[in-house]
Amino acid sequence: MKNLVGACIFGQSGGPTSVINASAAGVFIEALAQKNITAVYGAANGIKGILDDRLYDIGKEDPAELELLKYTPSSALGSVRYKLKDASVDETDYKRILEIFQKYNVRYFFYNGGNDSMDTCNKISKYLLAKGYECNVIGVPKTIDNDLFGTDHCPGYGSAAKYVATTMMELNLDAKVYDKGQVAVVEIMGRNAGWLTAAAALASYKGLGPDLIYLPELPFDPEKFLVQVKEVMDANKGKCIVAVSEGIKTASGVYVAEALGKAEMAKDNFGHAQLGGLAAKLADLVGRTYGVKVRGIEFSLMQRCGAHLASKTDVEEAFRAGQEAVRAAVNGETDKMVVFKRDMSSGSYKCVYELMDVAQAANTEKKIPREWITEDGVGLKHEFVDYALPLIQGDCKAPLEDGLPRFAKLKKVLVK
Amino acid sequence: MKNLVGACIFGQSGGPTSVINASAAGVFIEALAQKNITAVYGAANGIKGILDDRLYDIGKEDPAELELLKYTPSSALGSVRYKLKDASVDETDYKRILEIFQKYNVRYFFYNGGNDSMDTCNKISKYLLAKGYECNVIGVPKTIDNDLFGTDHCPGYGSAAKYVATTMMELNLDAKVYDKGQVAVVEIMGRNAGWLTAAAALASYKGLGPDLIYLPELPFDPEKFLVQVKEVMDANKGKCIVAVSEGIKTASGVYVAEALGKAEMAKDNFGHAQLGGLAAKLADLVGRTYGVKVRGIEFSLMQRCGAHLASKTDVEEAFRAGQEAVRAAVNGETDKMVVFKRDMSSGSYKCVYELMDVAQAANTEKKIPREWITEDGVGLKHEFVDYALPLIQGDCKAPLEDGLPRFAKLKKVLVK
Repeated sequence: MKNLVGACIFGQSGGPTSVINASAAGVFIEALAQKNITAVYGAANGIKGILDDRLYDIGKEDPAELELLKYTPSSALGSVRYKLKDASVDETDYKRILEIFQKYNVRYFFYNGGNDSMDTCNKISKYLLAKGYECNVIGVPKTIDNDLFGTDHCPGYGSAAKYVATTMMELNLDAKVYDKGQVAVVEIMGRNAGWLTAAAALASYKGLGPDLIYLPELPFDPEKFLVQVKEVMDANKGKCIVAVSEGIKTASGVYVAEALGKAEMAKDNFGHAQLGGLAAKLADLVGRTYGVKVRGIEFSLMQRCGAHLASKTDVEEAFRAGQEAVRAAVNGETDKMVVFKRDMSSGSYKCVYELMDVAQAANTEKKIPREWITEDGVGLKHEFVDYALPLIQGDCKAPLEDGLPRFAKLKKVLVK
Repeated sequence: MKNLVGACIFGQSGGPTSVINASAAGVFIEALAQKNITAVYGAANGIKGILDDRLYDIGKEDPAELELLKYTPSSALGSVRYKLKDASVDETDYKRILEIFQKYNVRYFFYNGGNDSMDTCNKISKYLLAKGYECNVIGVPKTIDNDLFGTDHCPGYGSAAKYVATTMMELNLDAKVYDKGQVAVVEIMGRNAGWLTAAAALASYKGLGPDLIYLPELPFDPEKFLVQVKEVMDANKGKCIVAVSEGIKTASGVYVAEALGKAEMAKDNFGHAQLGGLAAKLADLVGRTYGVKVRGIEFSLMQRCGAHLASKTDVEEAFRAGQEAVRAAVNGETDKMVVFKRDMSSGSYKCVYELMDVAQAANTEKKIPREWITEDGVGLKHEFVDYALPLIQGDCKAPLEDGLPRFAKLKKVLVK
């Protein structure tokens, strides 16, 4: 652990969130204030920007715009889904990264993302350590999926959960407005972990949530689903609202969207299936089976970029995660990821910032404990509500200009 | 025009909006304060509640909850889509309505809705006039479609437009985040008039809107669409965002969703085709043609119930529309609908409240003038921006409780 002097690079990776730029603001504002950091660079499209030598000079940005990043959704520097091969298999990318780091005397590297991005961060960290190139590497967590191991929760989750819970309340009022029955199926993101779909239970806690919640933690049985929908319809004048995770699978491990007839599923660069269209398929299944009016609804990209509905707690924690990463690196820490610990010792929620080995965060998924899910598998217990509620507190959004959000406008001056 | 003494009934009809309950609050609060109005009733599910003798006693509600109606989306009393036959064809429903009005000595009737609902309002008004039953009938406009004739704009439009414009800005940042090309097609409500889809142009005005906007005012040519998308992709590194109205039709008058292969389209009780699924179909068309990554997005019900993103201007005007209806009726007006006029004489936007014959509003659709649409047909001119921008100003939403909206909770005490 050494106190290094040199430039820093920050990169954003994976699916954007409402607050990933809040972490960027935290890194940038803190890094610009640190004497040992001689220059602050943002990588265009994450690791790709380093490989392509496309770095933005953050020192040239207007401080007021960096402040607005806190309220600006998506990845201001551009994101990427690029999987680094193991250095033992192909060293090409690593050599190039080292070359760029040497070219700009980069001694601090911060990478913001989820599981896959922490895998990238870990590989680079280990390579630099193996080569003896002194550079402090710290991962900054991010994912609306909330599935990163070792942290109480992830920046981005609280805002997406607030979007899901608030919108479910509004939809509940809308979908039940007519005197006739209707079944609405709402599809929510989350590939293998149901944290975001579970946030619909916060609306149920307020009496305005879905009647049934299907998580990817449990196998999905279409026959049982139809019976459960029918039970709700019979008890509620034909009305039923279902929240379903995009990633639910049958007992045999097949994605339900696939099992219901999607010819072939596209895959992204990490080999993950591109999901979606499930809500329409399940709604159609109910409609055909019971001859009732149905509607399939997808929260689509809105749930991850709805910054107008961001959680203040989430924005502040995401900013702080970026700050803490810089402070830790400047204090000589490396090969770590910032993690959140929940401190309830005062009787109320407090977030404490710690560090964990980045290798532990890489590629490990955290799922909802079975004991937080109701026996029947279609609801969440109070343990989940107690867990999630502190994360969605407070409002925090961009100032209005002409009634519309004034998002950050970066100059993005490329370093020559 | 007589000053009548008796009860009033208020009903909500058609698709709900973010502010239809703000108009309810305006009617209720004003009616409860009027001496000539002896009782204030809310019809459960609009005209159906009158036919079924299901009326809620609004006098039994907590005034604080009536106040919260301003910020509560959807129709608190329940809505309905029920078409009254012409009295000359079948008088059954009219006789029943008259019977209920006599039973409760109803001398004021307020009906809140769009074209179809104003048709209902008009028919009832004309029937009561013909029968010599003294009852002042006033329609309160409402529709996110903004297509009512004779009014500058409609309550509900401003909030839905603010949802569309804000969300398009957020989506623009998200959909363009990767270094690879992607075409996103966003489907927006609006059966025959493109006002709401056009609101996407407000995001474009801020530099973060769709590249192409397709309105139902102009025929849609799939071949031309593909060429226009390609042009944008070529100019923008493969990235393109399209906003499309659910109601676009081909030159031969066929709904595009239908033309692209929807086997059979369901129809609602008014014979209108139930639209939706168009975004996925158009995205698929682009994907198959050019082999690029695509995403279809529907704003679905969220655009009409997203009260957390309501326009303060819209909420205030919707409330006032309800108030003005009551004041007009108490002053002896009948057979009218409240309309908004735009007063720009001071140099800035001001809404003025007037009355129009309800027959004029019924079943007439107002569309976007051709001269407000760009020559190429895929954008809006500054005339539209100037028109729409004042309608989305200001924020106004329910107070937070546990980080979630505290919507109105009505007791809904049925009148015996």
